[in-house]
Amino acid sequence: MFANKSHLQAVPAQAVEIKQGFWADRQATNRDSTIPAVHHQMDITGRLDAWRLDWQPGQPKPHIFWDSDVGKWIEAVGHSLKTHPNLAFEQQVDAVIDLIEKAQQPDGYLNIWFTAVEPEKRWTNLRDWHELYDAGHLIEAAVVYYQATGKRKLLDVLTRYADHIDARFGVDEGKRHGYPGHPELELALVKLYHETGEQRFMKLSKYFVDQRGQQPLYFDMEAQERGDDPTKFWAKTYNYCQAHEPIRHQHEATGHSVRALYLYSGVADVAAETDDAELRDVCRQIWGDLTLHQMYVTGGLGPARTNEGFTFAYDLPNETAYAETCASIALVFWAHRMFHLDPDSRYIDVMERALYNGVLSGVSFDGSLFFYANPLAAHPNVNPAEQWSSIHGERDYQRSEWFDCACCPPNLARMVASLGDYFYSSTDDSVYVHLYNTSSVKLSFAGTDVEIEQRTGYPFEGGVNFSLKLVESTEFELALRIPDWCHQHQIAVNGELVEASVVKGYARLNRAWAEGDTVTLTLAMPVERILPHPEIRQDAGQIALQRGPIVYCLEGVDNGAQLANIVIPPTAELSAGFDADLFGGTGVITGEAQRVQPANWQGGLYQAESQTEIAHEPFTFKAIPYFLWANRAPGEMRVWLREG
Amino acid sequence: MFANKSHLQAVPAQAVEIKQGFWADRQATNRDSTIPAVHHQMDITGRLDAWRLDWQPGQPKPHIFWDSDVGKWIEAVGHSLKTHPNLAFEQQVDAVIDLIEKAQQPDGYLNIWFTAVEPEKRWTNLRDWHELYDAGHLIEAAVVYYQATGKRKLLDVLTRYADHIDARFGVDEGKRHGYPGHPELELALVKLYHETGEQRFMKLSKYFVDQRGQQPLYFDMEAQERGDDPTKFWAKTYNYCQAHEPIRHQHEATGHSVRALYLYSGVADVAAETDDAELRDVCRQIWGDLTLHQMYVTGGLGPARTNEGFTFAYDLPNETAYAETCASIALVFWAHRMFHLDPDSRYIDVMERALYNGVLSGVSFDGSLFFYANPLAAHPNVNPAEQWSSIHGERDYQRSEWFDCACCPPNLARMVASLGDYFYSSTDDSVYVHLYNTSSVKLSFAGTDVEIEQRTGYPFEGGVNFSLKLVESTEFELALRIPDWCHQHQIAVNGELVEASVVKGYARLNRAWAEGDTVTLTLAMPVERILPHPEIRQDAGQIALQRGPIVYCLEGVDNGAQLANIVIPPTAELSAGFDADLFGGTGVITGEAQRVQPANWQGGLYQAESQTEIAHEPFTFKAIPYFLWANRAPGEMRVWLREG
Repeated sequence: MFANKSHLQAVPAQAVEIKQGFWADRQATNRDSTIPAVHHQMDITGRLDAWRLDWQPGQPKPHIFWDSDVGKWIEAVGHSLKTHPNLAFEQQVDAVIDLIEKAQQPDGYLNIWFTAVEPEKRWTNLRDWHELYDAGHLIEAAVVYYQATGKRKLLDVLTRYADHIDARFGVDEGKRHGYPGHPELELALVKLYHETGEQRFMKLSKYFVDQRGQQPLYFDMEAQERGDDPTKFWAKTYNYCQAHEPIRHQHEATGHSVRALYLYSGVADVAAETDDAELRDVCRQIWGDLTLHQMYVTGGLGPARTNEGFTFAYDLPNETAYAETCASIALVFWAHRMFHLDPDSRYIDVMERALYNGVLSGVSFDGSLFFYANPLAAHPNVNPAEQWSSIHGERDYQRSEWFDCACCPPNLARMVASLGDYFYSSTDDSVYVHLYNTSSVKLSFAGTDVEIEQRTGYPFEGGVNFSLKLVESTEFELALRIPDWCHQHQIAVNGELVEASVVKGYARLNRAWAEGDTVTLTLAMPVERILPHPEIRQDAGQIALQRGPIVYCLEGVDNGAQLANIVIPPTAELSAGFDADLFGGTGVITGEAQRVQPANWQGGLYQAESQTEIAHEPFTFKAIPYFLWANRAPGEMRVWLREG
Repeated sequence: MFANKSHLQAVPAQAVEIKQGFWADRQATNRDSTIPAVHHQMDITGRLDAWRLDWQPGQPKPHIFWDSDVGKWIEAVGHSLKTHPNLAFEQQVDAVIDLIEKAQQPDGYLNIWFTAVEPEKRWTNLRDWHELYDAGHLIEAAVVYYQATGKRKLLDVLTRYADHIDARFGVDEGKRHGYPGHPELELALVKLYHETGEQRFMKLSKYFVDQRGQQPLYFDMEAQERGDDPTKFWAKTYNYCQAHEPIRHQHEATGHSVRALYLYSGVADVAAETDDAELRDVCRQIWGDLTLHQMYVTGGLGPARTNEGFTFAYDLPNETAYAETCASIALVFWAHRMFHLDPDSRYIDVMERALYNGVLSGVSFDGSLFFYANPLAAHPNVNPAEQWSSIHGERDYQRSEWFDCACCPPNLARMVASLGDYFYSSTDDSVYVHLYNTSSVKLSFAGTDVEIEQRTGYPFEGGVNFSLKLVESTEFELALRIPDWCHQHQIAVNGELVEASVVKGYARLNRAWAEGDTVTLTLAMPVERILPHPEIRQDAGQIALQRGPIVYCLEGVDNGAQLANIVIPPTAELSAGFDADLFGGTGVITGEAQRVQPANWQGGLYQAESQTEIAHEPFTFKAIPYFLWANRAPGEMRVWLREG
């Protein structure tokens, strides 16, 4: 029924070794700190024991997302095990999988809350509750854990659960026409299909994608069945969950940003698997809207805390930015899928922007603390006790150990652990290099094994050296991404400069490669002053500093208070440096600016300029990578800086 | 027991005639449009009929603030009747007063909700519900309506209710130690004391002021009695209702801004009536914190929507400003009281700032539509259906006919109707002129009647001519406020320039005045560029335009979209004008600025400055008074403008 006509596919992490440098360090921290921290928090909060289903009235309640938290942790461990075996991790997961297996009901149903707490409410509110979302995360976990370990137990459990869901939901006579309130299962079912080869899972995913938003709206009917008034939907609009109309009629990114991006990822999967040009165009249109109108310079998505999502085009407030960590992670998922649907570097450029900035800012440098929201400016004078705007206990200027709704920490853990999946893609006769980091990849072209090794100081240096190992000379295309931030590059093969045409963002080197061939890519990496689109009113008159893929910020600990009074002259020289003592060595940017403030302020809130002298005091600022903010003393932070 | 040692008092509105000009027009609109609109809305929403107490289960419920809405409308009518008799208004009020009288319970209790809907919950939740607040507004209404009409019925009803409350709450044995969750009754009881002379009401007010925040906290005990966990208070902190500590230990404006300002007004009343130096100093300290750290240039208060109130010093976001209309009105109340506690123009300067800006912006030019929140910048691309942040159905860029929680519209009606009370204050031998508007006032010094007439084009012109009518020559001090916005003034008496010393902000003219004497006050009124305090990060690099007491703003309808790209050079000449065709004639400010935007934008969200040409296009802007914004086509609005 479904045919994948493209041979283009991501090179799996097992074939990729991230040896040292930036991402090797981040993955080590993820293994040593983040994954154990997530496990510890899940343990002490009861998320693991909840699978015993022994909740009794009067005890603290589990909640409806707990299954997914555990799923993402298992998935993170699975990704990590693929390249870094760890018996302790595996034993922890196996113990929980035993509980999960026992928790599965005779009919295949599997959910903590709707088995142990409110079994009578099973499948009664797909709109607001998260049964299908939970199922999706458990399926992803099962697939990855099976890939990593060959252990089938969880995969078999989830296959049975997927069959249970398949028996209940669909277009066929006697099935209910429901779909997930929080998308996720769509993309998970495609993974399950890939792993098992069972086309019914692919068909079920396609059903969920196509049924969404069809009239009469399932969520309305379901609400009426519950005795609720559908017009009193707390979220006010079905845009919130992207069910306001069928996906094929949708053109804009809207609503809750994580729901949105998980859905779009699933849509891209279905488009690719079913070779559906209409769905592909829907994806392209929404992608265009998202990246041309609604994305922070950090790859953050969803400015509004109130709906945890999108507002309107060019509305990108900085201090109140929600920009949920999970939304940037989901952007990586979607971008990666879009590349395989429409091979063009523009998707990977966005993926890289999200990875180095909006995703990584979600976790502390030591891997133990997490941001839920990732604002682009912050002030420390907020008293957390009075922070009314907090939805999930998140704070704006300091990372937390955990959240009541803990979607972000395990999502970060699986994202970083799985990074090897995002480095390369290949076809029968070409390899795309998406990400630059010291690493190697093993490939095979026409039966010949090829190993490509990268050495680079990326993202703080723009030079990348490739060396090739082949047993015999082989012809294939080496396609090197020329990032959108780079305005000048050079390529040398075996020390000789070559002209490589750049097609869809990749410099194409087509030749018969031989053992010992080297390729040197030099990406000019000056400090860039980034201007905002003229309709982004919140950034007007301001610049962001970017060098390579990294967006920088000013922090109070380096620059004192009142960052808003620091003004960078248009002519000021900005210097890239490397601070070896900071966070184990990191790129920094310094420059001459001015502190512009009144010399004779009388103490009031407002003062006539006619009565005021303004002082312009020379000031050397120091900017650090945005993702590293809030790892030292609390203070102000600011990405967009006044220029003038 | 209580002695008012000061002879300084406000000249009541009955002695003041606001003849023509700015405030005469606003009062006419208030009578012709706002008061009838408020009555109509209260009628169609059931607020008037609710006094019949015939609510039945299953019918739409009244809510716990309805009594106060009706109270404020009666008070508005009362103020208006003092100077503008209106039989229809009076009949409408008398009919409702008949219902209110019948609604009073045999024990004196009077409240719609807790009689008709949940009588069993009477007095069980002073923290969150509004029984005492409702009582306060009804008392204010009763006093003013009696003053205006001599009709005692409502005053007698509310006196009985006040006695009921007095019997229930207090320090005495057998009384409960409660106090209002939402202050208001404190100041109302002082008015009742003034009108009736009954000192027990003064004593009760003082009790409420002093008991607030005492340990053990009444709100905690009350919650326990209800079976609620006090630590689960939805507002998280008692700062919300200024009960976190006793008022004598409070030094900062905190929490819900209307609650705060009503409380501080009551505290000022108690301080004045009981000559309590400690309470007066508390008032001064909080006043200092409020006006030096937490006030918008418009006199708006309370930046945060989440607690409808204060956050921290210098935190004054513009687009998300809550700045509730009622809070600016309450600032007028408190400022007026502070002047009488501590005669200094700094209070009246703030009062004037609030009146002309943050208060008046709450009502449309035609008097029929209302703002709940008064942001200092707005963008029209917000879809109201998705405006999650709305608490009371308020919208950010367009006024509404009404709100579910309708505190602001009738508050505006009573504020504008009572404006005559705020023009003058007098002692035995002096008169303070606070507000300038064509008007007259009748006074008496040592038995001699004096009438002072003002003629002026204020607030759009800075000249004020006074002429005095006296039957015989009399000595008194004419004290003319020199507003804080004015850096140069002249005074002539009978055409001759005089040097009048300015003491505590008032130019003092002490002499034996004679029939036909004239005084000419000339206040230099250039366009001022107002700078924000250097710690207000949201306004950095920007100026506000002010001329006289009026703060101006740019609107899209005059200046096109993307107001954030308009930059005013420091040297640009700014011209004050008068547009006779706009809103019946209003001051405007024009000036040469630049539209600064990229000349070669490629269409993305972000672009390197190295790849961008910036165009500086000359542009003539037009600013209108802030209070007049959102009366024409929807569009952007901005008070703080980029300078550079």
